[in-house]
Amino acid sequence: MSAIGAVPGVEVGQEFASREEAYAAGVHGQLQAGIYGTKKRGAGAICLSGGYKDDEDYGDVIVYTGHGGRDSRKKQVAHQTLADSGNSALVTSYLEGLPVRVLRGYQPRTKYSPKEGYRYDGLFRIREYGWKIGLDGYWIVQFTMESLESPSSPEPAAPSDTLKPEAGKARRKETTVQRIVRNTAITRKVKALHGGRCQLCGQKLEVPGGVYSEGAHIQALGKPHEGPDIPENVLCLCPNCHVQFDTGAVYLTDDLVVMRHGQEDGKLLTVPKHRVGLAYIQSHRTRWSE
Amino acid sequence: MSAIGAVPGVEVGQEFASREEAYAAGVHGQLQAGIYGTKKRGAGAICLSGGYKDDEDYGDVIVYTGHGGRDSRKKQVAHQTLADSGNSALVTSYLEGLPVRVLRGYQPRTKYSPKEGYRYDGLFRIREYGWKIGLDGYWIVQFTMESLESPSSPEPAAPSDTLKPEAGKARRKETTVQRIVRNTAITRKVKALHGGRCQLCGQKLEVPGGVYSEGAHIQALGKPHEGPDIPENVLCLCPNCHVQFDTGAVYLTDDLVVMRHGQEDGKLLTVPKHRVGLAYIQSHRTRWSE
Repeated sequence: MSAIGAVPGVEVGQEFASREEAYAAGVHGQLQAGIYGTKKRGAGAICLSGGYKDDEDYGDVIVYTGHGGRDSRKKQVAHQTLADSGNSALVTSYLEGLPVRVLRGYQPRTKYSPKEGYRYDGLFRIREYGWKIGLDGYWIVQFTMESLESPSSPEPAAPSDTLKPEAGKARRKETTVQRIVRNTAITRKVKALHGGRCQLCGQKLEVPGGVYSEGAHIQALGKPHEGPDIPENVLCLCPNCHVQFDTGAVYLTDDLVVMRHGQEDGKLLTVPKHRVGLAYIQSHRTRWSE
Repeated sequence: MSAIGAVPGVEVGQEFASREEAYAAGVHGQLQAGIYGTKKRGAGAICLSGGYKDDEDYGDVIVYTGHGGRDSRKKQVAHQTLADSGNSALVTSYLEGLPVRVLRGYQPRTKYSPKEGYRYDGLFRIREYGWKIGLDGYWIVQFTMESLESPSSPEPAAPSDTLKPEAGKARRKETTVQRIVRNTAITRKVKALHGGRCQLCGQKLEVPGGVYSEGAHIQALGKPHEGPDIPENVLCLCPNCHVQFDTGAVYLTDDLVVMRHGQEDGKLLTVPKHRVGLAYIQSHRTRWSE
């Protein structure tokens, strides 16, 4: 079983009659559970099998519900946790930028599901994760995953295979992308208004010849959040605070108090020409606070 | 003149008889100087014209010498500085992840130069920059640039066009990549040995479900530095210290004292199982300290 990355000999789009067949081919190391992996190594594969009604499938983008909180009849009866081994494996995949194999099953009956059996749809990358109250009224964790196989993928798929076991014990060392910081004309504008000062911690990260900062979209661009690329939806952050904001380690109250690891940590730094949209702050917060 | 990004109607590989023709086509906004751009907007274009003997051309990767320090006969007679407007434009392109148009002239007579005239070779991204004592004995700044046009580029070239002026004043908003953090099995191993604690500042950047850290190659992988992907050449850093280390705002002495903005800032944090290679520390330092 390939721990992480593509499986030699298995093509994107290849079909399997059953989970057992997919297991035998080395695509997914579980016969029932959706997530295959460990916190230490990350997730090797997930299966979209229709078991979680909060899943969303947009083809190149999947909103995948984490594991846990269900009774033996697969009814959601409790909150999910990140301590769950499957969920913690997906968090590791996010933190390390590791590719995850996606197996789609017939049960969700979306336009992207195979008519029968299971189909291997290639490697995906976890773009972000967050919490919401699911349809059954319990907190669930969801992982937004994007395909690395499509032409518009953030990274060509080939170099994303890591630790690909070849014949025998030889392993090819390859590079994955752990983090991608995107830039738009709007994020540049917001960073310029703040002179690169982090709105959360106040730091100006000085480097020879300039100041380094990042523009963070409060409500993420693209599916499923569809946040707009406007200054009101952007914060100027240092890289450390950006990582913490994206993962919900930091969020903001309606009074723009910075909550870091659940503790008050000063107020959001603002400048007159940059208004921060409260709706986006709220949208971000609902994914990270109870 | 397109400020930044591709020029509508100009193909990669298109040839021009002279700098004047390239100027008229909107590829490069200068007739003599190598760098076209400003600190505020970044660099729109550079021209490889053989004027700086320290330039290196590997095709998809170019080591481009900054501007300045030469007399009227183009002899290097002084150190270069980042205050130079062309160099500061390239620093902005680095910090913001902006694409730079590359024009190759006939003069360097490398295997990648056109036989005569000038050729537009598409968009490049600045991977890193640093200092060295050039062949003439003065400090020069050099920018390592990598093509965004090749199949193995870190990002498909298409989305890298930013602020592309179309007919009239309409501008398409597009996304560039400001920063890419790469990951290998070796960087993951080093990060695990340190439990994600930054070796420079001691911080563990906690996020829900884990700790976020980055593996920094001390001597960069790939051309021209060709640093090895081994634990001795990797540090476990928080994103802020990683940015400062890559840009030389932080470097290390042989005694592993952390020099931040030229001031002592504690010692490198180490763990018994992770030996840091002094040769790599020295190689990094020579690019950033006098």
